[in-house]
Amino acid sequence: MIILTDKILENVIKKRPLHSYKGTYGRIVVIGGNPNYGGAVIMNALASVYGGAGLVTVATDPSNFTALHAHLPEAMVTDYHDTTQLQILIKNADVVLLGSGLGEDDTAYHVLQDTLAAVTLNQTLIIDGSALSLIALHHFPLPNTHVILTPHQMEWQRLSQIKIDDQSLERNQSALQQLFPDAVLVLKQYHTQIYHQQQVMSLTIGGPHQATGGMGDTLAGIIASFVAQFHSAKLVDCVGAAVYTHSAIADELSITQYVTLPTQISMALPIFMKKHAN
Amino acid sequence: MIILTDKILENVIKKRPLHSYKGTYGRIVVIGGNPNYGGAVIMNALASVYGGAGLVTVATDPSNFTALHAHLPEAMVTDYHDTTQLQILIKNADVVLLGSGLGEDDTAYHVLQDTLAAVTLNQTLIIDGSALSLIALHHFPLPNTHVILTPHQMEWQRLSQIKIDDQSLERNQSALQQLFPDAVLVLKQYHTQIYHQQQVMSLTIGGPHQATGGMGDTLAGIIASFVAQFHSAKLVDCVGAAVYTHSAIADELSITQYVTLPTQISMALPIFMKKHAN
Amino acid sequence: MIILTDKILENVIKKRPLHSYKGTYGRIVVIGGNPNYGGAVIMNALASVYGGAGLVTVATDPSNFTALHAHLPEAMVTDYHDTTQLQILIKNADVVLLGSGLGEDDTAYHVLQDTLAAVTLNQTLIIDGSALSLIALHHFPLPNTHVILTPHQMEWQRLSQIKIDDQSLERNQSALQQLFPDAVLVLKQYHTQIYHQQQVMSLTIGGPHQATGGMGDTLAGIIASFVAQFHSAKLVDCVGAAVYTHSAIADELSITQYVTLPTQISMALPIFMKKHAN
Amino acid sequence: MIILTDKILENVIKKRPLHSYKGTYGRIVVIGGNPNYGGAVIMNALASVYGGAGLVTVATDPSNFTALHAHLPEAMVTDYHDTTQLQILIKNADVVLLGSGLGEDDTAYHVLQDTLAAVTLNQTLIIDGSALSLIALHHFPLPNTHVILTPHQMEWQRLSQIKIDDQSLERNQSALQQLFPDAVLVLKQYHTQIYHQQQVMSLTIGGPHQATGGMGDTLAGIIASFVAQFHSAKLVDCVGAAVYTHSAIADELSITQYVTLPTQISMALPIFMKKHAN
Repeated sequence: MIILTDKILENVIKKRPLHSYKGTYGRIVVIGGNPNYGGAVIMNALASVYGGAGLVTVATDPSNFTALHAHLPEAMVTDYHDTTQLQILIKNADVVLLGSGLGEDDTAYHVLQDTLAAVTLNQTLIIDGSALSLIALHHFPLPNTHVILTPHQMEWQRLSQIKIDDQSLERNQSALQQLFPDAVLVLKQYHTQIYHQQQVMSLTIGGPHQATGGMGDTLAGIIASFVAQFHSAKLVDCVGAAVYTHSAIADELSITQYVTLPTQISMALPIFMKKHAN
Repeated sequence: MIILTDKILENVIKKRPLHSYKGTYGRIVVIGGNPNYGGAVIMNALASVYGGAGLVTVATDPSNFTALHAHLPEAMVTDYHDTTQLQILIKNADVVLLGSGLGEDDTAYHVLQDTLAAVTLNQTLIIDGSALSLIALHHFPLPNTHVILTPHQMEWQRLSQIKIDDQSLERNQSALQQLFPDAVLVLKQYHTQIYHQQQVMSLTIGGPHQATGGMGDTLAGIIASFVAQFHSAKLVDCVGAAVYTHSAIADELSITQYVTLPTQISMALPIFMKKHAN
Repeated sequence: MIILTDKILENVIKKRPLHSYKGTYGRIVVIGGNPNYGGAVIMNALASVYGGAGLVTVATDPSNFTALHAHLPEAMVTDYHDTTQLQILIKNADVVLLGSGLGEDDTAYHVLQDTLAAVTLNQTLIIDGSALSLIALHHFPLPNTHVILTPHQMEWQRLSQIKIDDQSLERNQSALQQLFPDAVLVLKQYHTQIYHQQQVMSLTIGGPHQATGGMGDTLAGIIASFVAQFHSAKLVDCVGAAVYTHSAIADELSITQYVTLPTQISMALPIFMKKHAN
Repeated sequence: MIILTDKILENVIKKRPLHSYKGTYGRIVVIGGNPNYGGAVIMNALASVYGGAGLVTVATDPSNFTALHAHLPEAMVTDYHDTTQLQILIKNADVVLLGSGLGEDDTAYHVLQDTLAAVTLNQTLIIDGSALSLIALHHFPLPNTHVILTPHQMEWQRLSQIKIDDQSLERNQSALQQLFPDAVLVLKQYHTQIYHQQQVMSLTIGGPHQATGGMGDTLAGIIASFVAQFHSAKLVDCVGAAVYTHSAIADELSITQYVTLPTQISMALPIFMKKHAN
C-alpha cells in the first residue's frame, strides 16, 4: 500500500504547454442535481472549473440553472431530461461525472440508463453518489470505458455486498477485481483509499474539519478536472493527486478555520495547483 | 444569574475527534421562509453550515430555492408544502429549526402543525419567529422533546402574557416553569437572557451595531449548529455559547464597522470557532 | 451656498445609543424595479442595508425577488402589484423610496398612484428615477409629508420646465419654492446641489469614475438609510451627509480604481461610517 | 506587423474628463445567451461594466435575467425575443455586442437578422461566437457601420473558407480585404492577431492559464467597453488595447494561479486600468 504524499502531485500537475487551447484541457459533462440536491452539481462544477478543466457543461434539472450560473457563468447548462441533447454532450465529452445529487427516482433511473448507454471507449466515467446506489440496486453493468467509482462506505457495501465493518483492504481489492476489474475505486472513509488492479493508495492527511455536506461533490469535481487535463499521467495517479489535493487544501484552510467548506476548497485550487505544478 | 463570558466557549467548542464524519456533526432541518421572507432561512442555513453542522436541509417555499443555492450549494432543499417529504426529513433530523420567516398564514399554520406532530423524543426543536406567535395564538402544546424558544420581547409577551414592561427575571422564570418547564428560553433583548429551569444566563456583550434585520435568524442558525455538533455539552450551554459567539463576532466586526450584517457574522464563524476550540 | 465637507457627517452620523433595536433605525420600503430594471432596487436595498437601516422591504416585480435575495437575504420582498400588501407596508414604514427602475408603463403608473395615496404625515418619501418623470407627465401632486426629490438634470427639466442649460441656482430655487415648497431637491449633476427652502448645498467632491449606471440608485438608498436612522439631524442635513458619503467613498475607491461600481460603494459604507461616527 | 505592448494602453486609456457623465462612456447592448449558454452574456456584461462602460443592457433569454442580476445589478435586461424592444435598444446604443452564447437555432437566426437590420451608421457592432458561424452559413452581409469580428480559428475558417492550417497573415489579410474591407478582425489563436486594412497587430503575451471556457466572452466585453468610452483613440487601437489588457491581467493573475478564470479578469479591470491611465 502506498501512502499518498505531495510526490503524487509532481507526477500529475504539469506546467501547461504554451501551444494549447481549452480543448487541450478537456470537456467535462457533469450529470446530476435533482430539484432537491442541486447544490451537488454546483459544487462538482466549481471544482471542475477552478481545477482547470477546459470546458464544463452541467446536465441537471432546469430549476438548478440559475443558481449554477450565479456561481459560475463559465459553465454551460442543459436539461438532463432531454435525452437527445444529453447523448450529444456525452459523445463530445472527455470526462463524464455522473450521479452527485441525482437522487434515486424515475428521472434518476432514466438519466443513469441514458448515460451508461451513451458513454464510449476512451472516455472516463466518474460515478458518484446516488448513481452508485442505483447501479447496485439494478445491477447495471458498467460501460466499456475508463471508470472511476467514488463511493463512501455504505455505497460500497451496496455495490460489493461487504458490510462496512468487514471492509478490509484484501476484501475490497478482491471484490473490485471480481466486480469491476478495470475500474478505479475511491473508497471515501477515514483515511480514504484508492484501489486499482493490484495497487492501493491510502490518504493519511485531511481531518474532521472536512466533515460537512458537499465534500464528496467537490472531490468528484476535482477528480474530473485532473483526469480531463493531465494526459501524461496514469488515470490512477490523476485520481490520487485529486484526492490528495482536496485534503491538502482543506488542511491548509483548517489552520485558521474550525470547519472548511467545500466551495472554499474549490476557490483555493488555482493557487494550490500553481505551487505544485512542475 | 450567570454572566456569559468566553468561558462558556471552553465548555462547548471542542476539538473534533479524528474518527468522525458528517453524521457526527448532526442533521439539521431548517423550516421556514415564505415567499416574502425567504431571506430568513438563507440566514438560518448560512449560520448552520458555517457554524459546522454536518448536513443542512432547508424546507421552504420553492421560490426560495435558487437564492439559497446561490449562497450555499452546501445545503439541500425541499418544498415545505410536501408533508410526506417534510415528515421523513424531520424523522431523520437531529435538530429542527422552525419558524424564521414562516409568516402566519394558512401555509405557516399547516407547516407548524406538521412539524410539531413529526418531532420525536431526543431531537432538539428550536422555535423562532412567527412560529412563536402562531403557537401563542393557537395554544399549540410543545412536543415532547428538547425545545429551545427564541422570542424577542413582543413574542414572549404573546407566549407568556407578560407585558414587555413587566418582563422581570422572576416573572419570566416563573412563566417558563409553568408553561414550558423543560424548554430553554432565549429572550432576545438588550442584554439577552437565557432561561432554563433554575438557571439564568445573561449576555452583556453585543451592541447597537447589531440592530439590523436578520440578526435573529442568524442567531437561530448558530444555535442549531452548536446543538447539532457539541454532544458533550449540556443543551443550555450550547445555547449560551451560540448566543455569546453571535455577539462576540459582531463586536469584533464593529471595531471597524458602523453596522454589522448578519451574513458577515456567519462568514466569520469558522475562524472565530477555531480560535476558541479546545 | 454651502460647500459640503466632512463636517456635515459630524452633524449626522452619530454613535448609536446602547439601548436601541432595529426599529430605532427605521423601516424602509423600497418601491421600484420592473422586469427590465430590477437591478435598481437591488442597488437601493444594498445601500439601505449596508448604510444601517433597521429593516428594509423591497416591493418590486416578483421576477426580481431571487436576484435580490442572492445579494441580500437581509431584505424582505413583496409583489408591487399587490396593492393591499403595499399599502400595509407603506403604513408601517418610516421611509418610502419610490421609483428606481420603476419604468413608465401602466404598472408603474398604478404603483406610483397607490404609493402617493398611501403615504401619510411624518413619513419621508424619496422620489427617484422614472417616478419623477411620471409625476411631471401626469402632474401628480406630492403627498403631504416630508419629500425628497432626486432628479438628474433632464428629470428636473421635466418637473420644473427649466431647460438644462437654463438651470441656474436662482431659477432652481425659485421653481422649487413654487412647485414643491417643502421638499428637499437633490439635483444630480456635475457638482450635485441640494436645495431646501432658502438653503443650497453644493458637492465639490466626486469624479468621473462614478459615471456608470446605478450610481443614482445607490445614492437614493444611502439617503433612505440616513433619513431612517439619524433622527437628531435635520432632514436636509441627512440628505447632505448621504450625498457627501456617496462621493467620498467613490473618491477613496478611485485612488486605485479607474471606475467605481455602485455596489462597491454600498459594501464600503459600514467602514466609512465607523470612521466618521461621533 | 506590430507587436502589442503596454504602449497601446497609453494611446487608449485616458484619464476621464471632469465634466462627463455616464452617457459619455457609452451605451452598450449585449445580445446573446440562449437558455444553455447564458453564462456567456453574464461574462460579456461583467467585462463591460467593470471595464468602465457607461450603461449596459443585456438582451437575452429571460431565463438568464436572474443570474445576470445576481452578478451585476448594474446591468439592465430585456427579452431578446421582443423585436420591437430590441430595435429601440439598438437604435439608442453606441456599441452592440452580438453573438456570445447565442447558439444557432431559429431564435438565434431571428435575433441575428433583427440586429443586423437595426444597426445604423456610426455605431460599432462587435460580432462574436455563434453569430459568426451563422453569418458564414447564411452569407449575411455585414451592416454599413463599424464592425469588429472576433472569431477563433474555426469560426474564421467558416467565414473566410481558409482552413486553419492555411491561415497565414497574408491570406487572412487578403480575405478580410475582400470579404469585410472595413472591419477589424480579431483572430483568436495562440498569439492573437488583429487585422484592419493594411495593419496587423500581434499579441505575444498571455498563456495557457487562459485556456478555459468563457475567455472569449470576457474579451468581447472588454472590447465593447473600450470602444464605448475611448473616443479619442482609433477603433483598431481600442481593440488592440482591449486584447492586450485581457491577457496582461491574466498573466498577472497567473503569477499565483494555475488557471485564470474569465470573471477574475473582469474584476481586476478597474485596478489595472487605473495603473495604465494617462
